[in-house]
Amino acid sequence: MVPEEVIKELEAAVGAGNLSTDDAMLYVYGFDVSDVTGKPDIVVRPGTVEEVAGCVKVCAKHKLPVIPRGAGSGATGGAVAPTGGVVVDLTRMNKILELDLANLQVAVQPGVVIDQLNQALKPHKFCYPVIPGSDKMATMGGVIANDASGMRAFKYGTAKDYVLGATFVMPDGSVVPFGCKALKNVAGLDLLRLFAGSEGTLGIMAEFRVKVLPLPPSRGVLVAYFEDLETAGKAVINTYQAGIVPSAVEIMEKSALEVVNKYRPQAGVKVAEAMLLFELEGDLDFVESQARSIGYVLDALAVGDRQFSADPAEAERLWSARSAVGAATSVLEEGHNRVYEGEDICVPLTEIPRTLRKLRELRDKYRLGTVIFGHISIGSLHPAITIRKSDERDWKAMKELAAEIHAWALSVGGTVTGEHGIGVARKEYMAIMHPGAYEVMKRIKRALDPDNIMNPGKIF
Amino acid sequence: MVPEEVIKELEAAVGAGNLSTDDAMLYVYGFDVSDVTGKPDIVVRPGTVEEVAGCVKVCAKHKLPVIPRGAGSGATGGAVAPTGGVVVDLTRMNKILELDLANLQVAVQPGVVIDQLNQALKPHKFCYPVIPGSDKMATMGGVIANDASGMRAFKYGTAKDYVLGATFVMPDGSVVPFGCKALKNVAGLDLLRLFAGSEGTLGIMAEFRVKVLPLPPSRGVLVAYFEDLETAGKAVINTYQAGIVPSAVEIMEKSALEVVNKYRPQAGVKVAEAMLLFELEGDLDFVESQARSIGYVLDALAVGDRQFSADPAEAERLWSARSAVGAATSVLEEGHNRVYEGEDICVPLTEIPRTLRKLRELRDKYRLGTVIFGHISIGSLHPAITIRKSDERDWKAMKELAAEIHAWALSVGGTVTGEHGIGVARKEYMAIMHPGAYEVMKRIKRALDPDNIMNPGKIF
Repeated sequence: MVPEEVIKELEAAVGAGNLSTDDAMLYVYGFDVSDVTGKPDIVVRPGTVEEVAGCVKVCAKHKLPVIPRGAGSGATGGAVAPTGGVVVDLTRMNKILELDLANLQVAVQPGVVIDQLNQALKPHKFCYPVIPGSDKMATMGGVIANDASGMRAFKYGTAKDYVLGATFVMPDGSVVPFGCKALKNVAGLDLLRLFAGSEGTLGIMAEFRVKVLPLPPSRGVLVAYFEDLETAGKAVINTYQAGIVPSAVEIMEKSALEVVNKYRPQAGVKVAEAMLLFELEGDLDFVESQARSIGYVLDALAVGDRQFSADPAEAERLWSARSAVGAATSVLEEGHNRVYEGEDICVPLTEIPRTLRKLRELRDKYRLGTVIFGHISIGSLHPAITIRKSDERDWKAMKELAAEIHAWALSVGGTVTGEHGIGVARKEYMAIMHPGAYEVMKRIKRALDPDNIMNPGKIF
Repeated sequence: MVPEEVIKELEAAVGAGNLSTDDAMLYVYGFDVSDVTGKPDIVVRPGTVEEVAGCVKVCAKHKLPVIPRGAGSGATGGAVAPTGGVVVDLTRMNKILELDLANLQVAVQPGVVIDQLNQALKPHKFCYPVIPGSDKMATMGGVIANDASGMRAFKYGTAKDYVLGATFVMPDGSVVPFGCKALKNVAGLDLLRLFAGSEGTLGIMAEFRVKVLPLPPSRGVLVAYFEDLETAGKAVINTYQAGIVPSAVEIMEKSALEVVNKYRPQAGVKVAEAMLLFELEGDLDFVESQARSIGYVLDALAVGDRQFSADPAEAERLWSARSAVGAATSVLEEGHNRVYEGEDICVPLTEIPRTLRKLRELRDKYRLGTVIFGHISIGSLHPAITIRKSDERDWKAMKELAAEIHAWALSVGGTVTGEHGIGVARKEYMAIMHPGAYEVMKRIKRALDPDNIMNPGKIF
């Protein structure tokens, strides 16, 4: 139980209406997309940078855990409170503060949803190109704190590449501005990129200035099918070697094609060993010429008909097969639900075919529904495992399967997390992945947050 | 004087032939491109990661300054030894260790010169796209330690965006691997991007794995002239707003056109208030169509004839005007030499016209030769000041001019350094640019290098 004194001080910081200790409310804040849970003791909903700082100061004084939270769409337990404490819900801070498009930048509060920003940019023909699958839900604060990315990461990089400035609330509640309005700045250590991706363990970014880009005038989608996984992997490598950098290349393995076919027959996918979707951007001529060039690469590798369109509606239809995978997986089998474990590996490009084969072998070994898809352009694969959550044997098998998936990714020079992060869920891999370097990270954490109040139990 | 014992220990670490205390040799190591000087006590030239670590261990034991050094082409005193100590010259470690092109990456030692890497990649149709003006000289270690960039930074980002992994020698001499072979990895704090750009103040990166990209099949150059600075600035912003992202846009102000005309008449530049060079990349059709699109943008803004070519030799000739500026500035006036102060500001795009005008006013006020050019695509401007280095009045005027240039950049939301870094030369701006954040950087520095032996006096 949190002393009444603390509640009074927090109420003074955010206003009584923006603090809750209601049990039902706290219960809701105990979840994210993963199976990591943890009910906080208090939820506060600050509306300004000063209010965020005020809350953190109270927590620092009483050495209470501070858990920053956006939409709660993370997949690692990063926004839940396994050791209790104060969840700082930033979703009230959802204003786009400035569209400074001539300077290719916008200022936003952390609670702005990615798609909200992109909808505001669209009429001006600009975009924020970091689009994780959760862009209709996820907030800018969460996206940046987790260094999220998504299907266009090969071409556009990840969230941290777009942060030009931020107003940071440090673990002692002090407010520190980072960065400037110039698009390039090498004055000292890059705190922006250290704090972005730190999953709320170093403080709270309470305001951002992010780079935006011109919206490409056209987008086209090219779909091709493959008889085996090797040639699908090879098609990606050969595309790069032909000097072509698509804005996205997605893979759907047979399992993903099957579930989408069942769930959304109108997407019209065929079932093959693998399907690739290439997305191309630019002016229409360029999109078409790039599609032709990829066509030459595919002539030797793909099988059956290929589909291509740069017509917005038709391209959208082709793409709908890919966007349906998540939902299709969730309804794959009555009583089975998707779990977010072993779901976010990233491997070197040449290891993709072997990794896809390995994932199939493991699926057969553990007999758990595992739908395989991912951002093959950058080696990011998302095996989506489904289990009966009430069945202990399923849980046990799933844990073993996830461990084998992670071990495989590491054995081929990859990572256990390409985009979802560490949080609570993958913490055991920090020491394994970072011999020596994990200790360096801990020294930084201790130097900036000596009392370990910022999102304790995540990463560290 | 360094005790004989230390020299013996360092000799044991690198071999007697790779250590020097010869006065003439030490003198040479006391310089870089800037006017900051500082003679080291000892120079060591390790050939392996283990030898680097061995040297750092000896220095840590005796609390001696360690100054990592590549080609010495930096412009801030970052590689010289103002407080003496041991320069670790990494130029012997100049091997490309692995071309792993199917995985879009290479492994290199820190002494590899950028152009050496690009020459090795070219036959395979790949490139390392971080090309500062010094790419024929600068080493990969220096480029990454300073987070260098250059003319293609808007499209391709900066050096730190390409580091996938590194072998780091920490200030205590321990060897710590960072990163992995996957192209995307969000497992914990981003130490790679913290250490890249830290100018050797946190340790020595003794080996790298960096991302490479397909070489674009064609490049074209479009040259246009402007009657005033505002319209030149506007042309860049309008290009972005038309959805076009050139691989480079360079500006040469009247002063730069004049010196190049004098120095290299065969480049055939006309003298106008400003000239812009747009570089376009892709397949030939695309390069030509982009040039046409930029042409439409320019119709309302540029004056006189425009030149465009995608023929390699002719494009190279058009570009030669820009590449001659550095050399032309150095021979501008008998007895005058370029100084690297106030030379590296970066401002928000909308502030470029006002900044160019301000630079002209300041040139008139101080009556010092100041050639103005830069990477306008990203707001990076390089006013190149020349003085009689033996004249105290020139020095004094130059210092005041540089201070006014810096103050201006900060007043419009920019930075005192877009790409050259802080080193010794711009250290006084750290507290000004980073109120609060400089203290955060210092806490990180103290946590990782408590005895302050790593490149002391730089940044901190």
